[in-house]
Amino acid sequence: MTTQDSLDRFYSIIPAGGIGSRLWPLSRADAPKFLHDLTGSGSTLLRGTWDRLAPLNGEQRIMVVTGRAHRAAVEKQLPALLDHNVVLESEPKDSTAAIGLAAAILRRREPDVIIGSFAADHVIADTRGFGRAVREAIVVADAGYITTIGITPTEPAIGFGYIHVGGALPVEGAPSARMVESFVEKPDLETAEQYVAGGDYLWNGGMFISRADRLLEQLGETSPALLAGIEELAEAWDTPRRGAVVDAVWPSLEKIAIDYTVAEPAAASGRLAVIPGDFDWDDVGDFASIAKLHSGGRKSDLAILGENARVLADASSGIVVAGSDRLISLIGVNDIIVVDTPDALLVTTTANAQRVKSVVDALKLSGRSDVL
Amino acid sequence: MTTQDSLDRFYSIIPAGGIGSRLWPLSRADAPKFLHDLTGSGSTLLRGTWDRLAPLNGEQRIMVVTGRAHRAAVEKQLPALLDHNVVLESEPKDSTAAIGLAAAILRRREPDVIIGSFAADHVIADTRGFGRAVREAIVVADAGYITTIGITPTEPAIGFGYIHVGGALPVEGAPSARMVESFVEKPDLETAEQYVAGGDYLWNGGMFISRADRLLEQLGETSPALLAGIEELAEAWDTPRRGAVVDAVWPSLEKIAIDYTVAEPAAASGRLAVIPGDFDWDDVGDFASIAKLHSGGRKSDLAILGENARVLADASSGIVVAGSDRLISLIGVNDIIVVDTPDALLVTTTANAQRVKSVVDALKLSGRSDVL
Repeated sequence: MTTQDSLDRFYSIIPAGGIGSRLWPLSRADAPKFLHDLTGSGSTLLRGTWDRLAPLNGEQRIMVVTGRAHRAAVEKQLPALLDHNVVLESEPKDSTAAIGLAAAILRRREPDVIIGSFAADHVIADTRGFGRAVREAIVVADAGYITTIGITPTEPAIGFGYIHVGGALPVEGAPSARMVESFVEKPDLETAEQYVAGGDYLWNGGMFISRADRLLEQLGETSPALLAGIEELAEAWDTPRRGAVVDAVWPSLEKIAIDYTVAEPAAASGRLAVIPGDFDWDDVGDFASIAKLHSGGRKSDLAILGENARVLADASSGIVVAGSDRLISLIGVNDIIVVDTPDALLVTTTANAQRVKSVVDALKLSGRSDVL
Repeated sequence: MTTQDSLDRFYSIIPAGGIGSRLWPLSRADAPKFLHDLTGSGSTLLRGTWDRLAPLNGEQRIMVVTGRAHRAAVEKQLPALLDHNVVLESEPKDSTAAIGLAAAILRRREPDVIIGSFAADHVIADTRGFGRAVREAIVVADAGYITTIGITPTEPAIGFGYIHVGGALPVEGAPSARMVESFVEKPDLETAEQYVAGGDYLWNGGMFISRADRLLEQLGETSPALLAGIEELAEAWDTPRRGAVVDAVWPSLEKIAIDYTVAEPAAASGRLAVIPGDFDWDDVGDFASIAKLHSGGRKSDLAILGENARVLADASSGIVVAGSDRLISLIGVNDIIVVDTPDALLVTTTANAQRVKSVVDALKLSGRSDVL
């Protein structure tokens, strides 16, 4: 089995779900994070993800799982997306259902397919470095391991989960492969500093590369009922019964992240490998991280996002997201976050960026879903 | 001559000009400060001024000097304003022209009229205390002095000019009358502290009460050309020639504040008296002072202005001025100023409130008058 053979059997999956509550009021139910250009590159995050994956083995082998409401927007972003590569969720069921169903559909079409799942709303500038890591991961996946790509940390970030790396894994064609000891949740700063200093921890970028059959097998061990639902859907998918089975089965699927159903159990049973990825990566989780992406880390800078931004700033730093063509004037405000949209305005600071989700929660509770 | 006789000859003048640049983007050329309700009372500042003056001697004796563009808005605010009490400026010529012309018109109608000029955009809650001070000032004015009302300072404010008070002035019916030594410009904090501690300084509230003939006589000593223009206008005012003379004369009037043409020269020549006013007064010069008015000085409060304000605030203080019905969310921002209008947004802090004018200057320079 050659590396090229493995690559030929590779299929990318982009789960394009999640609103990105910490990016409200820019991200909304009807304009989620992945449909925004948060890097100022001129491309949405979804399109950036597509453009990173397409060079691996072509636009014909990228499947997108997204909500029904986003179909038109997704297809507009990805004109080359094939119809049989679109999986629509009737309601959000978290990542196990999304990735599991895509894997199950692809396995029925190609029994020895190797799938890779990549979030639609992360930022990686180094497409070549990313491609090198994925190619190694594909080889390791073909050897039977569920494989992730861990990002070499550049700082003791407390906003990311970490991967505790174990011993080397000898797989031909994947010289940097290691076993995964365990996943760890977002740490406090002191712990994060120890992780980065020790060198045995990588950031968890939420990428999974695996033979589809191995992934589903692992899922079946942890969540047999969920797997059964997924397989029932997959069996009907390429038949006229798809709609009826979706209506019957989808609502009953357990809503759970793939971290708990596949990744952590696989790590615990010695079936999870990792390829260290030495490229810049960000999950663009909040406005502070967007500000950082734009400023290159220079604290004094004011990042400005928005095609029609009209900003007049004096002695100010942070980020302005201009979602309207109003004139925005800042005077003497530092580390500020201003997000201006036609029906909602957010003013906070980079230190409070993570708390934006609490506003969304409060709006939900108070019934003001018109701005969510 | 009784006090009641003096009061019967009293006529109020409200110069309603000035945009209030430090209150941009709330105050605009087409929506100046005096047309806003900045106190949350439900009344505009202009209407509040009117309501303070009407009890003195009736709505029939209040004259308003304002720009042509504001006539409709002023008349809407003041339905009882008589047509012959409206003086329209074809272009702004500062306070000497505005007050001087009103005084000259009134003197031609009533040679022994006593006029009082009160800015349209100041805030005084204590109407009775204000009335008491004005009544004393009218008596002193009738005795031949140009008279101002100085506000007893409650703190060493650096945003106001001060009046240096001299010796007592024995006038029957005006027990608190004093001579004015001089006017002093806005001081630094140390000087202001000395002023307040010493007790011989009052805030300059910009109010002038005087016999019209005395005021015009004083003006003629300092600015004979300006007085000549004003008298030419006043002579034609109540005749069919008004329009033609306004067109011919108004553009040539010198643009200068009455402080320089009347108040300071009168003080220098011992003709200026002052009645100390022991009532709360504010010129609402910037958003910090509005925040202070609303919070009663409590630093932790968030003042919210705007009829349709929808504000969701967490751990924030300062002021939000909601000029749209957008949802405004604040998280962890202190002493913040957020002014939200349909076409312009301002974000700054109370410490920077005075710098707002610089934005307006920058917008003028860059030709973006659409938002001024």
